[in-house]
Amino acid sequence: MTDPTDRRPAATSDDVDAIRRLKARYFRLMDTKQWDEMRSVFTDDCHFDTTADGAPEIDGADRFLAMIRRFIEHAVTVHHGHMPEIELTGPDSATGVWAMEDELWFPDGGPIRHLHGFGHYHETYRRTPDGWRIASLRLTRLRVDRQ
Amino acid sequence: MTDPTDRRPAATSDDVDAIRRLKARYFRLMDTKQWDEMRSVFTDDCHFDTTADGAPEIDGADRFLAMIRRFIEHAVTVHHGHMPEIELTGPDSATGVWAMEDELWFPDGGPIRHLHGFGHYHETYRRTPDGWRIASLRLTRLRVDRQ
Amino acid sequence: MTDPTDRRPAATSDDVDAIRRLKARYFRLMDTKQWDEMRSVFTDDCHFDTTADGAPEIDGADRFLAMIRRFIEHAVTVHHGHMPEIELTGPDSATGVWAMEDELWFPDGGPIRHLHGFGHYHETYRRTPDGWRIASLRLTRLRVDRQ
Repeated sequence: MTDPTDRRPAATSDDVDAIRRLKARYFRLMDTKQWDEMRSVFTDDCHFDTTADGAPEIDGADRFLAMIRRFIEHAVTVHHGHMPEIELTGPDSATGVWAMEDELWFPDGGPIRHLHGFGHYHETYRRTPDGWRIASLRLTRLRVDRQ
Repeated sequence: MTDPTDRRPAATSDDVDAIRRLKARYFRLMDTKQWDEMRSVFTDDCHFDTTADGAPEIDGADRFLAMIRRFIEHAVTVHHGHMPEIELTGPDSATGVWAMEDELWFPDGGPIRHLHGFGHYHETYRRTPDGWRIASLRLTRLRVDRQ
Repeated sequence: MTDPTDRRPAATSDDVDAIRRLKARYFRLMDTKQWDEMRSVFTDDCHFDTTADGAPEIDGADRFLAMIRRFIEHAVTVHHGHMPEIELTGPDSATGVWAMEDELWFPDGGPIRHLHGFGHYHETYRRTPDGWRIASLRLTRLRVDRQ
């Protein structure tokens, strides 16, 4: 029962499911603006590369959340993820690619009224004592329309 | 072999997969207008709360299907679900949250021509002798555009 | 340990996951235009029925890729898949239905500028020495808008 090779397949499938649910929380908590709960989907030192959208690279989940709140706190946002490709790269580490689409409606008076984008998230995950967390996130874009 | 703690992980994963396929049938059968087959995805006493769309709360799958058929029978509809968060709450019960997007094109002459919405389904599931069924469905909306 | 009935459930779940990742590669490699890598998601003799879009039926992955490259090589394309219903039909064969949405932006000067479609993929899969492959693909449409 304690031979690790016995437990590997079940653990693998459970880990992939846990990472799918982690990313589901990322999307839901962002679009429902539950910032405190959203903080828990990232490692403290998470690295964010959304330079494809013109943002600077950011290290640290707190700094990223402060940035994202300034950007979308008062917008209606819809972020959807699709078709994950998740690979375990070690007992406590994994990578994932997700197709994504986002649509944002900003309040009147700002520089943009509407953003509609398509692309992929390229992520790494780390298992912590509190479960799997997003350890890095890079966004590539197929197309972005701004009005 | 009969110790229930032995069987829990495999059962859990199979049940989550069964609930994913159940919700996939819900979407496909609605958009392809296969009403008789769609009836089988719900428990008889299923509770529907789509008050976010202005509909009354409805108890009973037959009453809901009669309502939905009146509303979309002659429309082209696309309903997509994303990023499930499914939790087993007992051996025969589960909850699920799904991100969703729907787009409907109505025939000429009606009160609406086009609806495009975004939100979340909050659902409960019950295992019946015929498999998992949707036992309650509540829709919350992030945004709905009507033309 | 070698009784095949013992191993069936784990194999089933792994196979379904492998087919999900196979289809994820299909979408990602098409939209990022990685044609050589995309070739490996199909069996050599794969049958393609996209007659719903006005294309002829095609036998053979090489012929399909030549056709699809002529059609979308210079377009920005987004293809998303949702809500799979995958069933194993034998130890080395499976079927799958996927909801889909595609949006294509063509270069100036062509017969179409923009296509936005919705429908379902109806597919079969075959396990080969190199893993699961798409063995046939049929597209049905709920709606297609062309501009």
